[in-house]
Amino acid sequence: MRSVIDIVDLSVEEINGLLKTASDIIKNPKKYSKKCKGKKIATLFFEPSTRTRLSFESAMLELGGSVIGFSSASSSSASKGESVSDTAKVISKYADIIAMRHPKEGAPLVAALNGDIPVINAGDGGHCHPTQTLADLLTIKREKGGFDNLTVGFCGDLKYGRTVHSIIGALSRYNNVKIVLISPNELKIPSYVKEDVLDKFNMDYIETDSLEDSLPSLDVLYMTRVQEERFTDRNEYERLKDSYVLNKEKLNKAKEDTIVLHPLPRVNEISIDVDDDKRACYFKQVENGKIMRMALILMLLDIAKKDKSKFTLNDNKIVYNKFKCSNPVCISQTEQELKGMAKPVDNGNYRCVYCDKDF
Amino acid sequence: MRSVIDIVDLSVEEINGLLKTASDIIKNPKKYSKKCKGKKIATLFFEPSTRTRLSFESAMLELGGSVIGFSSASSSSASKGESVSDTAKVISKYADIIAMRHPKEGAPLVAALNGDIPVINAGDGGHCHPTQTLADLLTIKREKGGFDNLTVGFCGDLKYGRTVHSIIGALSRYNNVKIVLISPNELKIPSYVKEDVLDKFNMDYIETDSLEDSLPSLDVLYMTRVQEERFTDRNEYERLKDSYVLNKEKLNKAKEDTIVLHPLPRVNEISIDVDDDKRACYFKQVENGKIMRMALILMLLDIAKKDKSKFTLNDNKIVYNKFKCSNPVCISQTEQELKGMAKPVDNGNYRCVYCDKDF
Amino acid sequence: MRSVIDIVDLSVEEINGLLKTASDIIKNPKKYSKKCKGKKIATLFFEPSTRTRLSFESAMLELGGSVIGFSSASSSSASKGESVSDTAKVISKYADIIAMRHPKEGAPLVAALNGDIPVINAGDGGHCHPTQTLADLLTIKREKGGFDNLTVGFCGDLKYGRTVHSIIGALSRYNNVKIVLISPNELKIPSYVKEDVLDKFNMDYIETDSLEDSLPSLDVLYMTRVQEERFTDRNEYERLKDSYVLNKEKLNKAKEDTIVLHPLPRVNEISIDVDDDKRACYFKQVENGKIMRMALILMLLDIAKKDKSKFTLNDNKIVYNKFKCSNPVCISQTEQELKGMAKPVDNGNYRCVYCDKDF
Repeated sequence: MRSVIDIVDLSVEEINGLLKTASDIIKNPKKYSKKCKGKKIATLFFEPSTRTRLSFESAMLELGGSVIGFSSASSSSASKGESVSDTAKVISKYADIIAMRHPKEGAPLVAALNGDIPVINAGDGGHCHPTQTLADLLTIKREKGGFDNLTVGFCGDLKYGRTVHSIIGALSRYNNVKIVLISPNELKIPSYVKEDVLDKFNMDYIETDSLEDSLPSLDVLYMTRVQEERFTDRNEYERLKDSYVLNKEKLNKAKEDTIVLHPLPRVNEISIDVDDDKRACYFKQVENGKIMRMALILMLLDIAKKDKSKFTLNDNKIVYNKFKCSNPVCISQTEQELKGMAKPVDNGNYRCVYCDKDF
Repeated sequence: MRSVIDIVDLSVEEINGLLKTASDIIKNPKKYSKKCKGKKIATLFFEPSTRTRLSFESAMLELGGSVIGFSSASSSSASKGESVSDTAKVISKYADIIAMRHPKEGAPLVAALNGDIPVINAGDGGHCHPTQTLADLLTIKREKGGFDNLTVGFCGDLKYGRTVHSIIGALSRYNNVKIVLISPNELKIPSYVKEDVLDKFNMDYIETDSLEDSLPSLDVLYMTRVQEERFTDRNEYERLKDSYVLNKEKLNKAKEDTIVLHPLPRVNEISIDVDDDKRACYFKQVENGKIMRMALILMLLDIAKKDKSKFTLNDNKIVYNKFKCSNPVCISQTEQELKGMAKPVDNGNYRCVYCDKDF
Repeated sequence: MRSVIDIVDLSVEEINGLLKTASDIIKNPKKYSKKCKGKKIATLFFEPSTRTRLSFESAMLELGGSVIGFSSASSSSASKGESVSDTAKVISKYADIIAMRHPKEGAPLVAALNGDIPVINAGDGGHCHPTQTLADLLTIKREKGGFDNLTVGFCGDLKYGRTVHSIIGALSRYNNVKIVLISPNELKIPSYVKEDVLDKFNMDYIETDSLEDSLPSLDVLYMTRVQEERFTDRNEYERLKDSYVLNKEKLNKAKEDTIVLHPLPRVNEISIDVDDDKRACYFKQVENGKIMRMALILMLLDIAKKDKSKFTLNDNKIVYNKFKCSNPVCISQTEQELKGMAKPVDNGNYRCVYCDKDF
């Protein structure tokens, strides 16, 4: 049995397979409309995320399956103190696959390790959100034909934006992708992303604070939100905020075939006058997210049909119960009787297997 | 593409068509049980309304379709500040039709103008609730055979009751309908309803404060709730409240074939001892609401199939961005970058197109 | 028409029939996958209970039916003050069967008496939860082959645990079942359970405070949670709490074929190291709950098809409107215009028909 917690759980071949299934779904939706007849997805959303939840639900419905679940912790048994592990074991008796959103990092991994059905991470705190990355990849693939040789700009909050780190990681597996990192100084990409991804895979990248200067060179512009709360200096925020807002005027500096992505929801970082420009692809991204979720559900149910063995990590480097993770939003802080899991990393340190924070 | 925001968006012919479809659904429910196979309704309820939400959901299920959605703003992305416009654009990728309840007046219109699928207003603040009116109309039609020549009494809060204004508007299109307006002085029908509807269409109407005196003349009695909060003078409320409560004793003064309607939920304005009287039709109204919603969903999906163009207002009298609406519950107060829309009205003033308040 | 409010609403023959249907569902799930095609269950959960709600929902989906409902009072019309009776009348127009969870004792009975469709009590405060008992019975039946001659231990909070009282009641109808009641002094089984069940049906039982001493004799161990809040003396709680926790070490004292049940959610009263023991049956219980709910839905819809008459109590001993129940969590305290109902009990007292509290 397989589960998808992090985008790196999928090989390049598997991602290419999902992209191919997606193409086929787009061409022949009817062919897929009964593929999951009699199957149920459980959407376990311990915090609200309408877009992601409804994407999974419409994906399953378009495959002919059905849906059970909850949309916030307050309407779940979590308020009675049930562990994530027990919830996963219980839901395994009701459904065929789980999509889980949880504020604690690592919670979907705990569910995958304890339940009897595949788990898809639908976002665990600031940690991973692999199906967002799948949506991004299908959008780039459909709009640009592929990934090799593209120049991809990321603009806004590159420090906290997990979607950015995840898509950069996914792009690192393709050839000659150039990365342009556009952000204020406060929100530059963390050094571990540089070390673990950009440098490790010899990616060509530059860092800049100017969206306008970068725009003409980009094939893909990935926008994210710059939140006031991230700034220590309010004046700095006021000075900078407008430079990271994309409007029609700025977009005119981009190439004719540049595409603009955004993981949504946006607040005002993309002006509404951009929406009608043919380069604006963020609502297409929404549709592509649904289609990739359909492809992923199909893949995981197919594997689960053949291989009913429990999901395991199969990593002989994991050290059990030796370290206690100190990340306050790690699931290991709250989950009852959870065994600690750590993995050695290059610099001699250890990293929590649940939340990927180094000790 | 068509959307239904206000009951006046439907012509008399269309309403008659819906009533005819409803009759056929009642006769042959099986014939309709797969009409929406593969279709999804999104019930976007930014404030709770179980009865209306479940009515739309059961309507879609009885048509063979399925449902996605949320039942309160707290479990939606609205808490992350997403605009109604973006929500509509996103949901257009997931579903085939939207039923939207929103506390802000005009929100469903914003959704209709920006999404790519039909929108049904399931109640926007105190503004419109067209499917309630459709439920009322089907109930009168089924119980009384038609609308012409009826004497229809409205009792209770006629000032704030949007359902009352709406059904009076709908009845104005039929012949020789007499209206009896029964309310305390504080809660009399607003003058604009008199001017815009009763006088404009030459309807025969009287105003009175006595339910008991009016009862013998009525073919239809439409009850609404009198809320204590509406009164400035608490003594006045205490003095009056019982006279607007319908009980078995008072009902005995009505004709044998008078029918009693109520939009529900009731609190105590209709005594429970009335429920078993054959004249009590408020639970039939609930069923009729479901059936009319089925008919409306069918009609809108049918139009959307033939005409995929975006919903527009097509009104060359609309003035854009000239006036700012001051109604605190108008969607134009909160929605990001929304263009102002106003229409000239008879007295030389302008009226907000979103919430219908005059400037 | 029939409704199931209390486990005693089902005769032994009916329970045996449900167990038989359950066996057949397990053997031939496909045979049942379209039995409820076109039918809808309304899950009306006025307080959250994810496990129970999703159990009913997956049960209905596995029968080919569909689901409407709400998962907490805040997303229901209850906040607008609608009575349980009116809710039941309204939902009868939308769905074919109701599963209701409500914090007020007797609320599902009010729904059953007023709606036009069968009602299943999915838990009403501390009063009844009959489908939990059905889950327990199927688990014992599947794991032990039957009920006669078993020694069944109940451990933990036997005072407030409605599931315990209910399963003891159900077991009282079989032959030679021995009961072992294991609890701290504060949480001993109430005397009315002894009088009304254990003594009345001449059951063989012992009371003890030692789990470890009792374990070797048990065929079935039913664990429940011991909550700190139940103790007046905190030191007493600290002294006792560990003795009512089942762990691997203690379980070693049990027989090889003892089975361990728990109604879930557990907090820490069963250690996680017990989960992998083949005697741990509490997750099997979850699956059995779903299957028994399928069987019960089928039975009630089948009866409703043949007998459309309204559900009534048909008990000529009931005295109406004579007594007012003083139980603060009885539905009769809040429901509008509800007629009082009381039944004489053996000792000359009267008992509230809604909540079963003696006056």
